Amino acid sequence: MTKTDWKDKKNLTMLADFYEFTMANGYFETGMKDKIAYFDMFFRQIPDNGGFAIMAGVEQLIEYLKNLKFSEEDIEYFRSKKMFSEEFLDYLRNFKFECDVWAIPEGTPIFPGEPIVIVRGPIIQAQIIETMMLLTINHQSLIATKANRIVRAAQGRTVMEFGSRRAQGYEGAILGARAAYIGGAIGTACTIADRDFSIPALGTMAHSWIQMFPSELEAFRTYARLYPDNCVLLVDTYNVLKSGVPNAIKTFNEEIVPRGYRPKGIRIDSGDIAYLSKEARKMLDDAGFPDCQIIASSGLDEYVIRDLLNQGAKIDSFGVGERLITARSEPVFGGVYKLVAVEENGKIIPKIKVSENVDKITTPGFKQLYRLYDRKTNKAIADVITLHDEEIDDSKPYEIFHPIYTWKRKTLTDFYARKLLVKIFDKGKCIYESPPIDEIRNYCEEQVNTLWEEVRRFENPHEYFVDLSKPLWDIKNEMLKKHR
Amino acid sequence: MTKTDWKDKKNLTMLADFYEFTMANGYFETGMKDKIAYFDMFFRQIPDNGGFAIMAGVEQLIEYLKNLKFSEEDIEYFRSKKMFSEEFLDYLRNFKFECDVWAIPEGTPIFPGEPIVIVRGPIIQAQIIETMMLLTINHQSLIATKANRIVRAAQGRTVMEFGSRRAQGYEGAILGARAAYIGGAIGTACTIADRDFSIPALGTMAHSWIQMFPSELEAFRTYARLYPDNCVLLVDTYNVLKSGVPNAIKTFNEEIVPRGYRPKGIRIDSGDIAYLSKEARKMLDDAGFPDCQIIASSGLDEYVIRDLLNQGAKIDSFGVGERLITARSEPVFGGVYKLVAVEENGKIIPKIKVSENVDKITTPGFKQLYRLYDRKTNKAIADVITLHDEEIDDSKPYEIFHPIYTWKRKTLTDFYARKLLVKIFDKGKCIYESPPIDEIRNYCEEQVNTLWEEVRRFENPHEYFVDLSKPLWDIKNEMLKKHR
Repeated sequence: MTKTDWKDKKNLTMLADFYEFTMANGYFETGMKDKIAYFDMFFRQIPDNGGFAIMAGVEQLIEYLKNLKFSEEDIEYFRSKKMFSEEFLDYLRNFKFECDVWAIPEGTPIFPGEPIVIVRGPIIQAQIIETMMLLTINHQSLIATKANRIVRAAQGRTVMEFGSRRAQGYEGAILGARAAYIGGAIGTACTIADRDFSIPALGTMAHSWIQMFPSELEAFRTYARLYPDNCVLLVDTYNVLKSGVPNAIKTFNEEIVPRGYRPKGIRIDSGDIAYLSKEARKMLDDAGFPDCQIIASSGLDEYVIRDLLNQGAKIDSFGVGERLITARSEPVFGGVYKLVAVEENGKIIPKIKVSENVDKITTPGFKQLYRLYDRKTNKAIADVITLHDEEIDDSKPYEIFHPIYTWKRKTLTDFYARKLLVKIFDKGKCIYESPPIDEIRNYCEEQVNTLWEEVRRFENPHEYFVDLSKPLWDIKNEMLKKHR
Repeated sequence: MTKTDWKDKKNLTMLADFYEFTMANGYFETGMKDKIAYFDMFFRQIPDNGGFAIMAGVEQLIEYLKNLKFSEEDIEYFRSKKMFSEEFLDYLRNFKFECDVWAIPEGTPIFPGEPIVIVRGPIIQAQIIETMMLLTINHQSLIATKANRIVRAAQGRTVMEFGSRRAQGYEGAILGARAAYIGGAIGTACTIADRDFSIPALGTMAHSWIQMFPSELEAFRTYARLYPDNCVLLVDTYNVLKSGVPNAIKTFNEEIVPRGYRPKGIRIDSGDIAYLSKEARKMLDDAGFPDCQIIASSGLDEYVIRDLLNQGAKIDSFGVGERLITARSEPVFGGVYKLVAVEENGKIIPKIKVSENVDKITTPGFKQLYRLYDRKTNKAIADVITLHDEEIDDSKPYEIFHPIYTWKRKTLTDFYARKLLVKIFDKGKCIYESPPIDEIRNYCEEQVNTLWEEVRRFENPHEYFVDLSKPLWDIKNEMLKKHR
């Protein structure tokens, strides 16, 4: 077994909705296979009514696209369905990915309605990657977004991801730990995520450790002797204040200090954490261990953490489990993938999907996405979706306007514009290298800090502007008029 | 690439919380490595306040346990942490699983507080499997339980799992599709789940298919000519009643019927499904297609389905996406794994974890689990947790009693007792073969039908009895008295 076994050997080409293949066969059979199509991935709603989401999962999307390939067994599987032509099966056998792909880099704050991935290429190819693209980006963006909320609630205290055992499947745990790290967690309990993605793995003992010894004190002492430089003791197996903390202090005094170390911390995993942490803090301080951290776990999320801190809980670090790894309060990130244009004789023809539901109407066309920042504050002012070849000249004033309430207008001066979408595949070839995970994590923190505090508020945040350029708005408006 | 690549090559031994290894090293270093420990996996609360859950994930638990193995790279990883002794790393290098494991077979209704998996073996081995056992069983039991709720809400209409794109990671989709099938879904959109687990894959077209053609009618006609025997048309791209259904009927008349087939169905994916389905039903009936099915998708779960049917929606089949694959209303199945006994000189010493929280107190001891059925009705009456070697003699009256309100008593006669736990590993060797998936699915349906309707109610169901035998209750009570 080598390090990469679990991920690289796994070919996920067949992780696709079955209809991708009935459609693909249809395009093949009707001579449309090389028709160039444009798809946008975007999302409509920010989880937990937050002010922004965090892009994540691009590295795994790239891995998947690089490894697209149908095995003989896949072909045999399709043949057994008696729905696909032999010519189409041959096409799959010789499948070669040739699309152009643009994506917003991981760690970037993203907003509803804007393209976060754009694909251009032969319709069959652009279509069959739909399921995996959505799955990969939806999952990690969901967890990165949730982690970022929890980290912000902790107000500078550290947050650790502890949820593997409650994750939805193996990558729910592993890639969830990765996404949580991008969102700002300092580490994870998940060992394999450390081995494979260099997410620092953390953890010391479970209740079973305590139970295996004749007494709590003996369990503590044994642990302290083994790991004097990393001694975090779990103090709630029997009684936090009457037994756990006093035994921990005794252990620190008799096993840690004499060895020339300082105790690292205690962990409280049940009971009223606000009360217990305050009492434990006093006891530790009185015993001469003001530097001993108090770690809390059990049922935490951004709401509980905020309440605990409001009540003056004395907690230095939070271990967050199921509510982070499943994004329990809103476990779905609703990214969609929609056809927005096709090429006819080399010309780009925008496509629109109208709907009874106004917010399900798509924005047609091949696009570019700009983020505009204030030069004085470096704060993000608005995102503007433009046609792909439009340039925003930030040396001149630029007028933005609300795409629905078009009388809401604002002329920007003294701003700079940054293109958010980066080309990651050129005619099927990967031309982008994912940054190291720590770089992504730092970039995320830095970019979140370019958002006004009002956008970062948990409840009822200010709605960040995502506008259309005048040329794009005109196209959409013309098409809507035609269709109604 | 062969069929098994994505699952068999993947060694998940390192998908474990880091503290499993700090503890393991501790047991090794203190000479406790061969001490025999007993652990129970159980859960405390049924998701969505339901009356029961469905056991699932045992097949994947078995695969994981069979493949437990540390690679040289894993050893190197641990060495780099500078916390583990070389002797311990040698132990890992030569790791051989030797535990006994019992589990409740997949598809069985399960209840809070009862052991659903029991492990007996050397403490290090029994400990380090904690994370993966919980993750595997928690995830699939969560989805099987949710699917079963949705299937029951559909009252005999079919339910299809359509959620891959919103799943939490790859196995969130793949094993989620497997669990949904166990719970009663008839198939999935997920192609790889069909290839690898024989879960029937379903699906026909997305909106992009319609948009790729000059008109909806042409898109329909093309599809019908390609798949005349499996023609399900998506009718909501432009306008369901003004365009979609009339075009579908025209297509059926001109492309399907003349070829000697009957149309299979139409799918509605947006708008007011209750109203649209009733109108579409009338139009299809009037056109001579009373056998053409109406399939609904978009934002469905058991609650929406129940409301739609209450309002007389004319739907034959439901495609359920994100709310099934993430169990959105309650995305966590809270199974835990607790030390319940150790062996000292060959004698089993029960262990208990007391807690401020009464429902977090564990039940000590090495156990067996019986389900008692009424002989006349074949309905399940109660589950009884006993000591491992206790036999319930169902030829004699048997008294059960509530473990807290002990005056609540009932003497059963004319019943039969069935042991629920099956031994799946004997001294590390797998001695159980997972049944074929269709067998599990049928068994699940059959077992759910042994529950009284009152237990199957969605809101405020009757609480099924999970009692302790008198000998087990005595042990727990004695230990509680001693600890308080």
